Amino acid sequence: MRQNLFACLEYDGTRFQGWQRQATAPTVQGEVERALSEAVGHPVSVCAAGRTDAGVHALGQAIHFFVETTLPVRAVFHRANRSLPNDIVIRRMGEAPAEFHARRHASLRHYRYRLLHRPTPPAVERHTWTHFAWPLDRSLLEQTVARFEGHHDFAAFRSSACRAKRTSLTLVRSRLTVDGDRLTFDFACRSFLHHMVRILVGTALDVARGCLALGNIERLLTGKGDRSQAGRTAPPQGLLLLGVEYAEPYEEFSTL
Amino acid sequence: MRQNLFACLEYDGTRFQGWQRQATAPTVQGEVERALSEAVGHPVSVCAAGRTDAGVHALGQAIHFFVETTLPVRAVFHRANRSLPNDIVIRRMGEAPAEFHARRHASLRHYRYRLLHRPTPPAVERHTWTHFAWPLDRSLLEQTVARFEGHHDFAAFRSSACRAKRTSLTLVRSRLTVDGDRLTFDFACRSFLHHMVRILVGTALDVARGCLALGNIERLLTGKGDRSQAGRTAPPQGLLLLGVEYAEPYEEFSTL
Repeated sequence: MRQNLFACLEYDGTRFQGWQRQATAPTVQGEVERALSEAVGHPVSVCAAGRTDAGVHALGQAIHFFVETTLPVRAVFHRANRSLPNDIVIRRMGEAPAEFHARRHASLRHYRYRLLHRPTPPAVERHTWTHFAWPLDRSLLEQTVARFEGHHDFAAFRSSACRAKRTSLTLVRSRLTVDGDRLTFDFACRSFLHHMVRILVGTALDVARGCLALGNIERLLTGKGDRSQAGRTAPPQGLLLLGVEYAEPYEEFSTL
Repeated sequence: MRQNLFACLEYDGTRFQGWQRQATAPTVQGEVERALSEAVGHPVSVCAAGRTDAGVHALGQAIHFFVETTLPVRAVFHRANRSLPNDIVIRRMGEAPAEFHARRHASLRHYRYRLLHRPTPPAVERHTWTHFAWPLDRSLLEQTVARFEGHHDFAAFRSSACRAKRTSLTLVRSRLTVDGDRLTFDFACRSFLHHMVRILVGTALDVARGCLALGNIERLLTGKGDRSQAGRTAPPQGLLLLGVEYAEPYEEFSTL
């Protein structure tokens, strides 16, 4: 019997060329599809709520996929986990209605960006925190990050490879939390443009170190201006897909 | 001119056979001595406040070492950091009085043990958190950890390889903090016995999962009983040397 399954994944993106399957490079999707295919004995294609870039991590990536098997879900879960490398873990798995779609039905995606702001780079957390050694005006940083929140045209805050048709989005949350030298940026939006979180962080850092005027940001957010006028793209290793929220009737598949 | 230098080190212990130099295996001490020797142009031996085991990390390891060079300390610092692999970072370096000894003068060592208590193992933090999947009585765990605090004979809580003469120690802090599925154990003591933190954690876990009676622990802490009656040794990857405290007149060398 054909069954739609849902799963929540955690992965360390360090050694992968991102989420999306590629013929010649290790990807998270490639590993997950291989493990699931082995578990059920037929080729499996999975669809994820968010495609993460090379080096980006996930604590709560949501996926769905179809299987035809007499195995109970628990068996698929355990078999697949056993055959995955230890930088990918399936946190949970369950049956989903046939129409459930991990990407289309997602109502909110939560991303976190972590920055260590101090003279020397981290050793222990070097794969999960971005290091920033330059002086920063932290209050200006906070102000800039807060400015991103709300409904804006984010056309200037996406990579040139981005194919999204709509660039006007409501950024439900854009917030900075400071704990000593640890800066945590939290973002939530129904959907993000390509590289959007990393460009928002890079732009806020450029403002806070005096390379970009806050006034320019105001103008960029109205859709005037282009990518070249926003800040640089912050490196991938500080970025984490925290989780995905689903609204009724799919709220049980939320991974946050 | 011969000068005693102090340094604070951070390292990810994952790929090292511990702190202590070995002829044939990669060690943190070996890498640090190589980098410092290259920086100053003569062989350098370093002495650390605490020897960490294979797989154990440090955020604030304290060391001292003698150099004979006309280079300013800043130059030694930058040269050595440039030649270190990226899993070891020198956080700071400075001149110390000739008699300063990183190990002998340490007045308090702070260790943290991190345990992720949930069904599935972590992917992102798999090298820095120990995974524990069994049911636990968390209030019994907290009680057992608190029981360790104070002056006791810890003879039963050390490895058979431990050569320390005195086993009666004052554990200044032994505390558990719970944040959802994240359990953080904090310990502070002037000096620890070999494997002591990992055996304390393993013993508390054995009590909390019902494999060991709390009453036995009481007896073990009076110096009656031996290693075989305490709990198992918790794995190394959850352990972190947070920092070392020095009392007057060396308080400026504290790394916490």
